[in-house]
Amino acid sequence: MRLSDRVQAMQNSPIRKFNPMAEEVKAQGTKVYHLNIGQPDIETPSVFWEAIKGFDQKVLAYAESGGLPELQDAIIDYFKRFDMALERKNVLITSGGSEALTLVFLSLLNPGDEVIVPEPYYTNYLTFIQAADGVVKPITTYAEEGFKYAIKERLEKVVTEKTKMISIVNPGNPTGCVLTRDEMRVICDFAKEHDLWILADEVYREFVYDGREMTSFGQFPDVEDRVIVIDSISKRFSACGARIGCLVCKNEEYMAQVMKIAMGRLCCPTLEMVGAAALYRLDPSFFNEVRAEYEHRRNVSYDALKKIPGVVCEKPGGAFYITCKLPVESAEDLLVFLLKEFKENNETVMYAPAEGFYATPGIGKNELRIAYILNADDMARGIALLGKGIEAYKAAGNK
Amino acid sequence: MRLSDRVQAMQNSPIRKFNPMAEEVKAQGTKVYHLNIGQPDIETPSVFWEAIKGFDQKVLAYAESGGLPELQDAIIDYFKRFDMALERKNVLITSGGSEALTLVFLSLLNPGDEVIVPEPYYTNYLTFIQAADGVVKPITTYAEEGFKYAIKERLEKVVTEKTKMISIVNPGNPTGCVLTRDEMRVICDFAKEHDLWILADEVYREFVYDGREMTSFGQFPDVEDRVIVIDSISKRFSACGARIGCLVCKNEEYMAQVMKIAMGRLCCPTLEMVGAAALYRLDPSFFNEVRAEYEHRRNVSYDALKKIPGVVCEKPGGAFYITCKLPVESAEDLLVFLLKEFKENNETVMYAPAEGFYATPGIGKNELRIAYILNADDMARGIALLGKGIEAYKAAGNK
Repeated sequence: MRLSDRVQAMQNSPIRKFNPMAEEVKAQGTKVYHLNIGQPDIETPSVFWEAIKGFDQKVLAYAESGGLPELQDAIIDYFKRFDMALERKNVLITSGGSEALTLVFLSLLNPGDEVIVPEPYYTNYLTFIQAADGVVKPITTYAEEGFKYAIKERLEKVVTEKTKMISIVNPGNPTGCVLTRDEMRVICDFAKEHDLWILADEVYREFVYDGREMTSFGQFPDVEDRVIVIDSISKRFSACGARIGCLVCKNEEYMAQVMKIAMGRLCCPTLEMVGAAALYRLDPSFFNEVRAEYEHRRNVSYDALKKIPGVVCEKPGGAFYITCKLPVESAEDLLVFLLKEFKENNETVMYAPAEGFYATPGIGKNELRIAYILNADDMARGIALLGKGIEAYKAAGNK
Repeated sequence: MRLSDRVQAMQNSPIRKFNPMAEEVKAQGTKVYHLNIGQPDIETPSVFWEAIKGFDQKVLAYAESGGLPELQDAIIDYFKRFDMALERKNVLITSGGSEALTLVFLSLLNPGDEVIVPEPYYTNYLTFIQAADGVVKPITTYAEEGFKYAIKERLEKVVTEKTKMISIVNPGNPTGCVLTRDEMRVICDFAKEHDLWILADEVYREFVYDGREMTSFGQFPDVEDRVIVIDSISKRFSACGARIGCLVCKNEEYMAQVMKIAMGRLCCPTLEMVGAAALYRLDPSFFNEVRAEYEHRRNVSYDALKKIPGVVCEKPGGAFYITCKLPVESAEDLLVFLLKEFKENNETVMYAPAEGFYATPGIGKNELRIAYILNADDMARGIALLGKGIEAYKAAGNK
């Protein structure tokens, strides 16, 4: 039977494809520290559960295609913290940030259109762009430089006549790189000069450390017609399984067009939207504790990584990921070794090999991404296991 | 700013686009009988709410990309009623039937590939197919014939070298047409002869009347490699707002490929999957009462429609829709009249004009779809208002 070219060109998620192997190991009684996926262990705030318990309609009916108005309004109020003045028509609720991204690429890209994406990137972007028959044009960034990419000369090198947009995750997944306001200005000017859309995925907005400023691409009025902000409750409120996100844009013509696809898929889950509205209305002080916790975990994780001989990375400024170079040739081969041949006190560790986060062939093979979503003790232990695993891997004759 | 060609080619949902006009009328105090959307008034079964209330995890985490195993297992058991032997790898949980359809078209269609679709069709199919840059090849069906389409000669007329699949909704939306087993055989043989996929959207499977047999395209073993069944809890269990559906296919190579897109979007909402598992485990006797209720509503609705002079339709055999011809030139123009210029006892009625359900230009202008999702009294009243509205429309000089 004949399938589409686009689905055959897609890869299996490098974050999830080793899960079955890990499940086997766990079934045999070995503890696996899961540093491979951005699933926080922080409790979903109680207001979420209470709001859902308070839902008392007898028929779970379709919601509005644009989203429950009470959730749209909560999001509008939330964005006032960033001096953004939105109306309901600027906010489209989606099934997670994932659906928002799918809608954006389907609504902007013709087959062959190019999207500038700093690499390593959140790997599912490749899938979403391929779904729209678009093409990723990578800007390669480097662990040694803290994965910086907002550099005019490097941006200019990858732009072509087919470039339609630049896609940014800020704070960055998988790099933890956080743009300064000056760097955001560079991106904005570049987008204006080449008439590009700016896709700004800011789902980690609150997770910036060392006193860095929280900011949004929605705060640059001169580009508001070309900026699409992606938001999600998954990480911010530790509610990954709710699958509630949104797409925010001040360009009304664009919102009217993308709404046509949104109407086709009818609506997002009603109950989860009710819970999400309560989350967006949490007092901003909620983030102080969460931010402090993640900053602590970052410090512990970074320090533990730096103790492993040959690991290369800069201390990331935000999100909850660290991508680094390992002193091995293949991070994927090492991972299989860790899962199948290594354990200490019946424990081992799992991470996401970073090769699948690059579009440029042949690079990233010796890199990994870890998510510091476990408590500091578990992070320290997981990374110590990585260090010992590398030793054992090399002692077994691997490079 | 430049958008994609595909989004600009899409239409606004003919089912939803008049909602703002209806909201205005209601804000002025007029009651509107909403016969335009398939939102049942039947209560969502209590097991759904209880299952969600019983969910006691502190972190609402990502679920498996293929779906919660407990929901997959409930679906596997459900399909045993139709003699279908499934495993988890054959069942992909999706955000409503809508996402299942999107995944199918993205995974099967290259740009320009054709999908045979009986028209009038569920209008969002057009949007889903356009999202994958596919092309709808309609088989026109007729109210006078009860919208039959499983006729070999008519199928042969629309097949080309670019045809990759035939897309069936059975029982039919918007026509209520139910295939006999012999007709299903015609479709299966046609698909085998031309090496086509069969997309079988069977979300109304239980809603067949007059003693008709419930059946599935999954019950034809000789085509199991080319059949993809779409299912959903929205209509069957009156849980439209849960957005839980699934895609079922015995072709393992296909399931492995479509899973790549599913992994990209991570997962479906966890809580709603927990509730859905309880629904799929409801005793089949649940449907007896629901089916009897819908059959009664269909009878009342059909009788009321036939009392309106000039209305053309056959009695539909399933689902909960009736599509019929009206004695006016434009059902859309009549709808605007009903909403803006007509009321009786401060009440009026709303339906879906059917023109947007046809790909062939110029047909369907004088047709409408109603959903018999209100209680029988309200259906009778709503359709009586339609009859009186047509009288007033013509008396005002309209054709």
